[in-house]
Amino acid sequence: MRPSHYSGPGRHSGRRVMGRQGMVLAGWLMAGMAAAADVTVLSAARIHTGVPGRPAVEAMAWDREGRILAIGDRARLLRSHPSARRIELPDATVIPGLIDGHAHLMNLGIALLRADLAGTADKAEVIARLRAFARNLPDGTWLLGRGWDQNDWPEAAFPTAADLDAAFPDRPVWLERVDGHAGWANSAALRAVGRDLSGDWQPEGGRILRGATGKPTGVLVDTAMALVDAVVPPPDRSMREEALRRALAAAASHGLTGVHDMGVSLADLELMRRFADQGLLKVRVRAYADGAGAAMEALCAMGPYEHPGGRLSMRGVKFYVDGALGSRGAALLADYSDEPGHRGLLITPPEAFQAAVQRARDCGLQPASHAIGDRGVRVVLDTYARVLGDDAMRGNHRWRVEHAQVIAREDMPRFGELQLIASMQPTHATSDMPWAGDRVGEARLQGAYAWRSLWGMGVVLALGSDFPVESVDPRLGLYAAVTRQDTHGQPPGGWRPQERLDLAEALKGFTWGAAYAAHDELELGQLHPGYRADFVVLAADPFAIDPTDLPRLPILSTWLDGKPTFTQPGSE
Amino acid sequence: MRPSHYSGPGRHSGRRVMGRQGMVLAGWLMAGMAAAADVTVLSAARIHTGVPGRPAVEAMAWDREGRILAIGDRARLLRSHPSARRIELPDATVIPGLIDGHAHLMNLGIALLRADLAGTADKAEVIARLRAFARNLPDGTWLLGRGWDQNDWPEAAFPTAADLDAAFPDRPVWLERVDGHAGWANSAALRAVGRDLSGDWQPEGGRILRGATGKPTGVLVDTAMALVDAVVPPPDRSMREEALRRALAAAASHGLTGVHDMGVSLADLELMRRFADQGLLKVRVRAYADGAGAAMEALCAMGPYEHPGGRLSMRGVKFYVDGALGSRGAALLADYSDEPGHRGLLITPPEAFQAAVQRARDCGLQPASHAIGDRGVRVVLDTYARVLGDDAMRGNHRWRVEHAQVIAREDMPRFGELQLIASMQPTHATSDMPWAGDRVGEARLQGAYAWRSLWGMGVVLALGSDFPVESVDPRLGLYAAVTRQDTHGQPPGGWRPQERLDLAEALKGFTWGAAYAAHDELELGQLHPGYRADFVVLAADPFAIDPTDLPRLPILSTWLDGKPTFTQPGSE
Repeated sequence: MRPSHYSGPGRHSGRRVMGRQGMVLAGWLMAGMAAAADVTVLSAARIHTGVPGRPAVEAMAWDREGRILAIGDRARLLRSHPSARRIELPDATVIPGLIDGHAHLMNLGIALLRADLAGTADKAEVIARLRAFARNLPDGTWLLGRGWDQNDWPEAAFPTAADLDAAFPDRPVWLERVDGHAGWANSAALRAVGRDLSGDWQPEGGRILRGATGKPTGVLVDTAMALVDAVVPPPDRSMREEALRRALAAAASHGLTGVHDMGVSLADLELMRRFADQGLLKVRVRAYADGAGAAMEALCAMGPYEHPGGRLSMRGVKFYVDGALGSRGAALLADYSDEPGHRGLLITPPEAFQAAVQRARDCGLQPASHAIGDRGVRVVLDTYARVLGDDAMRGNHRWRVEHAQVIAREDMPRFGELQLIASMQPTHATSDMPWAGDRVGEARLQGAYAWRSLWGMGVVLALGSDFPVESVDPRLGLYAAVTRQDTHGQPPGGWRPQERLDLAEALKGFTWGAAYAAHDELELGQLHPGYRADFVVLAADPFAIDPTDLPRLPILSTWLDGKPTFTQPGSE
Repeated sequence: MRPSHYSGPGRHSGRRVMGRQGMVLAGWLMAGMAAAADVTVLSAARIHTGVPGRPAVEAMAWDREGRILAIGDRARLLRSHPSARRIELPDATVIPGLIDGHAHLMNLGIALLRADLAGTADKAEVIARLRAFARNLPDGTWLLGRGWDQNDWPEAAFPTAADLDAAFPDRPVWLERVDGHAGWANSAALRAVGRDLSGDWQPEGGRILRGATGKPTGVLVDTAMALVDAVVPPPDRSMREEALRRALAAAASHGLTGVHDMGVSLADLELMRRFADQGLLKVRVRAYADGAGAAMEALCAMGPYEHPGGRLSMRGVKFYVDGALGSRGAALLADYSDEPGHRGLLITPPEAFQAAVQRARDCGLQPASHAIGDRGVRVVLDTYARVLGDDAMRGNHRWRVEHAQVIAREDMPRFGELQLIASMQPTHATSDMPWAGDRVGEARLQGAYAWRSLWGMGVVLALGSDFPVESVDPRLGLYAAVTRQDTHGQPPGGWRPQERLDLAEALKGFTWGAAYAAHDELELGQLHPGYRADFVVLAADPFAIDPTDLPRLPILSTWLDGKPTFTQPGSE
């Protein structure tokens, strides 16, 4: 994975000492030198390296391949590399590239292909936004959108298909209401439904709004939405390419240099591989195979996957053990506090899960298992313990528990004993806090979103967002981690503040911790000689600002392998 | 794929010329030299290199990695490598390792896990052979066999389950008759059938032999065999490992250093990869993915597969276009001569085949398409031409037609125009010759098994066996290619002898041609500096013996990467 390179000082001292023999060596090394000569030195107000012994430096040098050559004093680095390209950012702060430890790139991209209609003041603004959005869509593809709310509009009445037809006579348009409980179709979309929507029939659990003549108005409620959803074509290859392009751009623009993509199909891996082949994969992707699909067997046949450029790998498998807390699908050891008699559900029976984990181990793959409820987490702990056996303590396995939202207090030390990674998403806590207590009650909250408890036990935390379930923006994750407040500062003092992380810890979770969780910590997650030059340039030092300003801390640029993947317009 | 190495003469002359500077280089190269010092020099009566300008030499030197360093005079090579390990074979002849261009390793291995009962003189010999065979079988697994013929036994009557039960009271035993039209089960096997076989019912198209009391005797005829076949467990992992082990041993013992394995599943690739990881893959395997399974999509996702050791790759896909001639499944342009109104069948519709070929191309994979009848071949030619377009002439694609048994005369030049590989199996011709004329008639025989016609047009022939359909023994393929006779010398003069190859051509088809067909010709198929030391040691020079002796020409040893994979007992 790591191409050899010759560090500047070593090469120069070699030349001084060796004389004639050195000349021979120099000739011998000519090819290598030509590459190494192309060095960049960046200096900034502060560079947070993430390296324990040397937390902050002034400058950093890297080579043409994007490998860090040196960190340290600006003057010394410029002396060592007199012909280096210089980047001077005297007001900026550099941090290691942020890595989202649990996310879904393709889902984000597909969501980004829907027009955002939230906050529209009237239907004219809806049409205007749709027109602008449609400009980048291939001909004939459906225009999908979401976020409209007729209560924001002057007439405060449901819209109709006719409102859309003038602007979009042929292209089907299908727009989800802000709450997801109604959809607004144009006539082209209604025509695409292979069934006459007129008359007086209604689907079970839903409603087709109709005019006086019995014709559908264009708004479908609840289960009636499925009539249109069913005929929206799955994204074709060009749409999927566009989705990935947009997801990568969104991630890079928010300071992400890496993403652990959870549940990747072979088709998605192919798409990412083609992007990587063409140099378009502007975020480093650690793909975890969809454990329910064909990808795991492909990895078993061919071995863990590594793209030669280092930007894409698939060395692990994502499994689902239980559901989610909001929908009461998370598997609990005792009844839901707000639904007696119900304990959630195991999506995968424990025996099948164990067989799958055993198979992953047998194939040299790293399991990453979704478990949200305390029973789901216990199933994962029991299964990992059984499959790993004595190797739990000996090995370097880094098996992962994804989410681990509610953990029985007595199970918590087992994360350390089994040397597991807790892959957690700070914004899930601040999204769930309004109702999480209703679901599990006060006693079980002791082990809920318990970042600091785990951290205190020495468990490695890999932090992430689960985007697009939450925002792709890791600044929101850092903010949630250090405040346990929503972006309006609620609740005051934070929700269960004893589980907060400090900023250094949160940043470590989004850099070193995530890198470690993917066996990447020897080249990612810190700024250190030999490591990849993946970093983010910020307008201010995050350690010097009020935590409430973290969500708005400007990201000036994002760099991967020593090259910018995002530059804020005007910051150049 | 090719590790760098320093050829002996270059290194030595460098040391002489360079003096002090050379010493520096020598130090620099120390690691490389240590490896290069471990050289082997083999000398033989004759080494057929397969290299056009230097067809025969006395000696060959290779390094520890199994790369050929030099070929040439024995005295010179020994002078250049004074400390080399020496192998002196003054009576033997060396040829490049034989490569079977179309075969099925796992099927061979599974077949080798059945006891061979052909030629047994009585039931006692059957029991004795079965007992010996069972010694290597895991407990509880079925004992399968084939080849018995009650007409060879003194009583000349069908055997019974009771004949087997004393020796095998618990292990199910299931033995196919020599013609495949009857099976002989013991009581354990009959019990495994989930249905009472007593009474007077009979399956459609078959017969259950029964005694006076209506109980089954143990012999099942034709479709009745399916009652037992259905309950024979598919081979488990240890059985499949054993099957592969036996297939590899069989291939190596017959002088094969390479096999193009056609239609490999992901599960089989995994097995081969694990063998390769452990250094157990004693034949170089070029796997072609089963185009009907998940393997192609896995390759599309992850890219063509290469095992780092060079012994296993999967860079192509096997498709089926039509059936076989014997069963009248091969697709013909006109009616079968012996079945008016019938033209065979296309297993894959042309549109689906074209989509699959297009997909293979899009994924950078090489198609290898089974086509036996003249219509099947034409579908392949038309499809390849459409998908390749102008790249047919420009590219380096080496798309393959497997079997190409019956080709319309007017289609023959298209093999050259499209730069296709004809992957043909000489023993198919000599197996089919008794009835091939009945199937297709005299006119179409003009383009049947037409090796020399294609050769004469400059088409690259990759020769193989299609084992286990035919014997794994490539000596039989060479013999069939040069004689077009069966092993009894029939028919005199050979069947359609104008299509014979000479021995040099046949050998080229089993070495260089097969290597070329897998894009391996820059390191396999010839004995040349820089190539892999894959070769076969024969007791005599095949060019110096009567062709009728080819099937019995002793193979003394087989070598892969400069190490023996087979040594004839007593020949060491």
